[in-house]
Amino acid sequence: MLARTAARFGRPLGGIRSYSGDAKAVVYSQHGRPLEVLKLHTYRLPAAGAGQVAVKFLSAPINPADINQVEGVYPLRPAFTQALGGDEPVAVGGNEGCVEIVGVGPGVDGLAVGDRAIMRHTLFGTWRTHALATAADLIRIPYGPAEVSAVQAGTVSVNPTTAYQMLREFVALAPGDFFIQTGANSGVGRAAIQLGARWGFRSINVVRDRPDFDALAAELTALGATHVVTESQLADKGFRNVIKQWVAGSKLRLGLNCTGGASTTNIARQLSEGGHLVTYGGMARQPITIPPSLFIFKDIHLHGYWLSRWADANPAAKEAVLGELFGLVARGELRDVPVDRAVWRDGMSDAERLDVFRGAVSAYIEGSKGRKQMLVHE
Amino acid sequence: MLARTAARFGRPLGGIRSYSGDAKAVVYSQHGRPLEVLKLHTYRLPAAGAGQVAVKFLSAPINPADINQVEGVYPLRPAFTQALGGDEPVAVGGNEGCVEIVGVGPGVDGLAVGDRAIMRHTLFGTWRTHALATAADLIRIPYGPAEVSAVQAGTVSVNPTTAYQMLREFVALAPGDFFIQTGANSGVGRAAIQLGARWGFRSINVVRDRPDFDALAAELTALGATHVVTESQLADKGFRNVIKQWVAGSKLRLGLNCTGGASTTNIARQLSEGGHLVTYGGMARQPITIPPSLFIFKDIHLHGYWLSRWADANPAAKEAVLGELFGLVARGELRDVPVDRAVWRDGMSDAERLDVFRGAVSAYIEGSKGRKQMLVHE
Repeated sequence: MLARTAARFGRPLGGIRSYSGDAKAVVYSQHGRPLEVLKLHTYRLPAAGAGQVAVKFLSAPINPADINQVEGVYPLRPAFTQALGGDEPVAVGGNEGCVEIVGVGPGVDGLAVGDRAIMRHTLFGTWRTHALATAADLIRIPYGPAEVSAVQAGTVSVNPTTAYQMLREFVALAPGDFFIQTGANSGVGRAAIQLGARWGFRSINVVRDRPDFDALAAELTALGATHVVTESQLADKGFRNVIKQWVAGSKLRLGLNCTGGASTTNIARQLSEGGHLVTYGGMARQPITIPPSLFIFKDIHLHGYWLSRWADANPAAKEAVLGELFGLVARGELRDVPVDRAVWRDGMSDAERLDVFRGAVSAYIEGSKGRKQMLVHE
Repeated sequence: MLARTAARFGRPLGGIRSYSGDAKAVVYSQHGRPLEVLKLHTYRLPAAGAGQVAVKFLSAPINPADINQVEGVYPLRPAFTQALGGDEPVAVGGNEGCVEIVGVGPGVDGLAVGDRAIMRHTLFGTWRTHALATAADLIRIPYGPAEVSAVQAGTVSVNPTTAYQMLREFVALAPGDFFIQTGANSGVGRAAIQLGARWGFRSINVVRDRPDFDALAAELTALGATHVVTESQLADKGFRNVIKQWVAGSKLRLGLNCTGGASTTNIARQLSEGGHLVTYGGMARQPITIPPSLFIFKDIHLHGYWLSRWADANPAAKEAVLGELFGLVARGELRDVPVDRAVWRDGMSDAERLDVFRGAVSAYIEGSKGRKQMLVHE
């Protein structure tokens, strides 16, 4: 215990590459377009006090909710504060991330220097190099870097957890049952394919029309997708009969939707009587449009899924799901979406750091074709 | 029992005005526009056989589902048959109605000449003067004509039952809670206002903009409506705050929708977090359009309600609800939508009968401002 509490932020510790010097964060002092309002902020982190740990960030993705938060259009937003010093109140961007414990203050149990953890809640502010946290802010990763990399750990708590819950909460699917989803090559979509396949569910996976469709279809099929179709195919009345034949003798009672617009209407049309359509995103920036007859005569039900609401209401359940997901990742049985790494290295100038981060934001905004943009610290 | 089984269709029976001569029905031999395909059919009804009763129709409404059935766009359709004779297979229109028993065949229990009944199921074909039925086709009305008129009985099984179930099935509303509905001056809407008020629920009732809004608002308020608003008011962003103030301190967790289009989107926006929107009609012939954020961040749920599905799955429950509703009607505690009577009288020619019925269909098609078109036999 003495060894733990003696550890201090900024002081080299046997075998642990500890931080010394200023900490850096990507912050914003007002809502707006990310490329316009995000800036680099330098601050000095005090040593971990009682009940605190000092953490060094290893990885943090750019998720859609993070961008919407910066834009001010997301219902949960961090407060602007001067806790990190500076001339004006700011918020640190980012919600998901993987950290390494580099210092442990007095009175902290269950976390040691060298442990790795992920954020337990949203709103921590993960686009930065270092932070002080409490044990309540973190969920310890029960595997080492060789089993679960920092990049993998940094994306497990949002997308795979969302897919896991959506496949479980709304319909009691049985092995052999189908589900259908839009945005199937997203992080959630890829997790749903893999988890669904593990549980014996067959999937019909809708992706946008693209020149490299065959390659993507092969990639998703390798993950466990039963069928991969384009939005154009889904919109084609003749093709609907093809889908009906796939499902014949089974049921298609669950749809997962992250787009909006025509493809959402079209997956709703495919649902079996009594089916449920769950919306967790609106990437097409179009509303969800459903003919009344689908509600009345086909008895379909529409719901939304927001991981934060569930996680806040069910912290123990979230930890249990994460434990299961970490195990799958460690055994190579759950692969995340491909990642584009935006790397911050020691010694980089502030301008370089901001430039690297803005590049990742630009790639996100331009649509990175199902690749996750991630800040990685080396 | 002898008196009952001796009763025969077409034979005058003490005190009962029995039918003698041909029976008449409004039929169609192909789907299409009602004014083009509906025609009058004359047939001879045989005497009630074993297990059968002969019924004389007293009233039968023109409901939206009836019209959609004729058009061929309703999922449940009667079979075309030659059971009523004639040169070609036909179907009798109409699903709801009130009858008087005018003959009872051998082996029928629980129904006597002079009893009145309503249809237990859809698809009976109620736009006619007489029919043979079985006890299983009918639900006996436990009140006399002075308590529950034939016109009242002829509309109780669809609209009030739909309102009753929608107010009960989706959300456990508590006294003081609000619900909101489009098409509030429809038959279902008026029943929901009255039943809701009985159960202590407050209602926000949306009606189309109209010159006589004040009179309609007064009428609905007299039925128990808490607030009556126009679609324009509902669409006004400033007015949304007025509605928020009405609901402040309570919850608005249930919306009932029979329109589609903007007013449906707007009632969905008004729902409290976790609210449910139930669609039972699409009178505006426009889809239901909802922004993804309402699903994700406000956790609203959309469902449909089709009375036929529920009634077929829960026949005992339907009979129990009808028993309660008949009691309310008999005590003057449930008033139906205003009725326009299309009257068939003895001795009318076929041309006159068809003309009267087509007039009612025209009034329905032109939009009869919340008035129910009903075939009444005198």
